[in-house]
Amino acid sequence: MESKQVTISGAGLVGSLLSIYLAQKGHRIRIFERRLDPRKTLIDGGRSINLALSDRGWKALEGVGLEGEIRKMAIPMYRRVMHAVDGSLSFQPYGKEGQAIYSVSRAGLNAKLMDLAEKTGKVNIIFDQRCLDVDLHAAEAVFENQSSGERNYVKADLLFGADGAFSMVRGAMQKTDRFNYSQHYIEHAYKELTIPPGEDGKHLIEKEALHIWPRGNYMLIALPNLDGSFTCTLFFPHEGKPSFESIDTTEKARDFFSKVFPDALALMPDFDVDWEQNPISSLVIIRCFPWTSNNKVALIGDASHAIVPFYGQGMNCGFEDCTVLNQLMEKYGDDWYTIFGEFEKERKPNADAIADLAMRNFIEMRDLTGDEDFLFRKKIEGWFSAKHPDKWLPLYSMVTFSHIPYSEALAEGVRQDRIMDEIMKMPDINTNWQSVAVEEKILSLL
Amino acid sequence: MESKQVTISGAGLVGSLLSIYLAQKGHRIRIFERRLDPRKTLIDGGRSINLALSDRGWKALEGVGLEGEIRKMAIPMYRRVMHAVDGSLSFQPYGKEGQAIYSVSRAGLNAKLMDLAEKTGKVNIIFDQRCLDVDLHAAEAVFENQSSGERNYVKADLLFGADGAFSMVRGAMQKTDRFNYSQHYIEHAYKELTIPPGEDGKHLIEKEALHIWPRGNYMLIALPNLDGSFTCTLFFPHEGKPSFESIDTTEKARDFFSKVFPDALALMPDFDVDWEQNPISSLVIIRCFPWTSNNKVALIGDASHAIVPFYGQGMNCGFEDCTVLNQLMEKYGDDWYTIFGEFEKERKPNADAIADLAMRNFIEMRDLTGDEDFLFRKKIEGWFSAKHPDKWLPLYSMVTFSHIPYSEALAEGVRQDRIMDEIMKMPDINTNWQSVAVEEKILSLL
Repeated sequence: MESKQVTISGAGLVGSLLSIYLAQKGHRIRIFERRLDPRKTLIDGGRSINLALSDRGWKALEGVGLEGEIRKMAIPMYRRVMHAVDGSLSFQPYGKEGQAIYSVSRAGLNAKLMDLAEKTGKVNIIFDQRCLDVDLHAAEAVFENQSSGERNYVKADLLFGADGAFSMVRGAMQKTDRFNYSQHYIEHAYKELTIPPGEDGKHLIEKEALHIWPRGNYMLIALPNLDGSFTCTLFFPHEGKPSFESIDTTEKARDFFSKVFPDALALMPDFDVDWEQNPISSLVIIRCFPWTSNNKVALIGDASHAIVPFYGQGMNCGFEDCTVLNQLMEKYGDDWYTIFGEFEKERKPNADAIADLAMRNFIEMRDLTGDEDFLFRKKIEGWFSAKHPDKWLPLYSMVTFSHIPYSEALAEGVRQDRIMDEIMKMPDINTNWQSVAVEEKILSLL
Repeated sequence: MESKQVTISGAGLVGSLLSIYLAQKGHRIRIFERRLDPRKTLIDGGRSINLALSDRGWKALEGVGLEGEIRKMAIPMYRRVMHAVDGSLSFQPYGKEGQAIYSVSRAGLNAKLMDLAEKTGKVNIIFDQRCLDVDLHAAEAVFENQSSGERNYVKADLLFGADGAFSMVRGAMQKTDRFNYSQHYIEHAYKELTIPPGEDGKHLIEKEALHIWPRGNYMLIALPNLDGSFTCTLFFPHEGKPSFESIDTTEKARDFFSKVFPDALALMPDFDVDWEQNPISSLVIIRCFPWTSNNKVALIGDASHAIVPFYGQGMNCGFEDCTVLNQLMEKYGDDWYTIFGEFEKERKPNADAIADLAMRNFIEMRDLTGDEDFLFRKKIEGWFSAKHPDKWLPLYSMVTFSHIPYSEALAEGVRQDRIMDEIMKMPDINTNWQSVAVEEKILSLL
């Protein structure tokens, strides 16, 4: 296979992982990253500190031999723990016995990926480089060293835009004829808060779980960290009542939390500081097409398909991009015309599907997980799925614990919804849900 | 009222008209235009040579006293003339007796508006100026003289982006938090062709009409010019069969026209030259929100809402923006916070509605105007509307011959469609359509 000179814009999770896959195929890669080296400087901005890794992400890490090392720094979350206003708890397992999604530190994972990339001997990461402009025909990008102001004109055989939701590479593609593009900000934003470790670094609430305080139009969630703390995220409307706009002082925020999240507030000694210092961050959905240009330039990860975080699939989907691209490199070798064509054709409908699924899951998390009917419905699904695992894999499991294309999972989920609508109409369903009649009815509708 | 220093980016139709309205209120305006002065240089690029002016556009021109002058250079088009493949014609009036849409030259209209703007003594148009960057907080824009390379840093009290579908002002807004944006290219593109004047400058086909050759998935249209020629536009898919991609030589194009547009081809002696020299132009729909920034910057016309041309409303909608802005200036004086807020709130749903209506009308024009059922349906609507003008104004008339907000017209049109679906199901509707039964049925459904 011909060794290509490759430029990647962005050394985030997807850019770093991509470079390893390309290095494995013998290509030489330079990654230009806007930030300083996060391994040398602590630059967490109170945003998106941890992530939920699931099967698609693990598979991509396996492909570069990193799975074992990351397992050590990941905390399994086996179930959702829902916190009612009165402090009472309810539970919903994510999958079958032993199945979990994993809380990992974004910074830690990124650092490991950068280390491994450099260890290949074929990847050079250059930091503090802002992308100014891209020539799509020449696969040439201009980067500016943000300290010295020096400009780097970098030409390569291939250029990847792994530069996130606000991608500069995509910015250049946006100006080309027939490039479809949309950026849509949802009405909710988020702010991160902290539940610190208890004595001896113990977790103060159930460690191996994802906690949700569902409150209808908004919610608080918490993911465990290795140091015994939890990173909590409040998803809350920008405007309206209540909203970040209406709750505009720390005092009002504390008062609000004492009413709707009293058990969480009790565990947040630094609430005031967190509220004041941590930013309100918007949430954007990005869609575009095509993802490639001139058989030389391609977008990957959030650059082509940023989604909302409610299915925990943003990173997993970007990592799956790498898995798919790797499969295509294996299949088509040097034929980048075909690799790029197949890549965007295969991934686009899946990216669209997970974007839709993530919005649906927001409604499920913030509202339905507090709804008894919904939980009952899920219980019936789980019961049937356990009896007929070959006939019914719940949507959440398809997305999280399988490699079924997202678009197929979404279509199957819609079909399952229709069937469950019928089942819930059955008389005496509340008492007879584990009956042969219900089982046969589902089988007949499948 | 306080006199403001205003910058407008773009001296096209909307930018020029806007400057006159602002000058009438005592403001001082500088317009920066990318092109050379079209009044001194002939720079038609074979694109969008004429336009259809209708009531909304006329009203905006009336507001600056230009209506009379433009009437002289406008050709009324009272009806659609549909050309079948066999050359037979059918007809559909646009409105009531005497109602018409008007074919005007884009360049001629633009020149008149520029002249009038300069005549106010308050508007200065500077040409050959490319907008490089915009500071939304300071209402400052950077323009570069494209000949000398000299840069102009232009600060003002207010900055309007009237710089079209590829607006640089909007480009700056796109980078701000919570700016929703989409650009969607439809699958059809267009190419312009010409039917030259006959002997003595006579029009070779009916002059006071808009001609359509509806062919299902594509169409040819023709609008009359003052010199006796017609500008024809082929709306045709980029890809597929047939398409601009599949018909990739002039010979194939000629052969294709001889089969599907034989009567038109017979009137096009310069077909080969036109086909080879005129570009294939894409069609894009732009949506965004907000339209204003920092109470100092606003988008207007195509910059905030570019639509497809099939309802002939692109310019009319941009002109209506000017009418509405003028009404708000009269109502709120110096309160630009309120003016901008009301402007985007009032216009956004109407811009969205006309974008949808324009796509609907494409289907109507290219397909349904060749459909007997559709024409029959329109005939029943016209008959009922003539009997009950206060109860039924056809959708086309609401959009074209009224000032009803586009969003209301669309909603009413949807309601009318539902009623007509019921009417078409009546037994013997083909023979009894002018009956009391039909009249009463419509009245009961209204």
